[in-house]
Amino acid sequence: MVTKLASDSFKFHETLTEVDDRLVREVLERVSGRWSLSVLRILGEVNGPLRFSRVLERVEGISQKALTHTLRTLERDGLLTRTLYPQVPPRVEYELTTLGRDLMVPVASLWQWIAGRLPDFAAAQAQQRDV
Amino acid sequence: MVTKLASDSFKFHETLTEVDDRLVREVLERVSGRWSLSVLRILGEVNGPLRFSRVLERVEGISQKALTHTLRTLERDGLLTRTLYPQVPPRVEYELTTLGRDLMVPVASLWQWIAGRLPDFAAAQAQQRDV
Repeated sequence: MVTKLASDSFKFHETLTEVDDRLVREVLERVSGRWSLSVLRILGEVNGPLRFSRVLERVEGISQKALTHTLRTLERDGLLTRTLYPQVPPRVEYELTTLGRDLMVPVASLWQWIAGRLPDFAAAQAQQRDV
Repeated sequence: MVTKLASDSFKFHETLTEVDDRLVREVLERVSGRWSLSVLRILGEVNGPLRFSRVLERVEGISQKALTHTLRTLERDGLLTRTLYPQVPPRVEYELTTLGRDLMVPVASLWQWIAGRLPDFAAAQAQQRDV
């Protein structure tokens, strides 16, 4: 049964052109990178606009440069908006778009699935160490 | 409604310890890397064991070295098994584990979601180019 599900899961993909298939993979890669996921999740949790410095505070371990790059990439994919308020000092705010918020639903499902199977992943890794 | 969904999606994550949360992110990153996804999908489609050389043929553009590394990483995570048949020349086969096959279900959902929203992603990227 499980076996059947697994091989059926990607059936839809036969209907994609090669170009579309590559585009999907590229989006998936960008979205699931280390910093991207953290940034998307934080903006998803806040559920409203957040200043650059606030995002920086909340993404543990990210550098200013890496955050700038990550936000720019997500903006290019239409997942968040960047709004500049020309005041002194200038204020820049980031917020998920509808596309970005919608994306969080299947991403969270996958995240939750992995979280639920962590003991299996840990057991596999422990076994490898013993070999 | 959509807004509500987005912020609720990650509620479960508050129940994870910091260590578990990092583990989930690491698995997600490894699984969604360019080659990992392609390899997992091909093994999922075949739905049985596949020789190294057959995987190599089917993952377009991958080098032998990158494939070896990818397979090793997925094996460490318990997503596939590697079986060596000591014959001449030696035969090595790879096959998804139950964990690997199960994982394909939420991964395929996310993939399919992105595929369904490709026009939105394309529009966002086109808009960026115009700015």
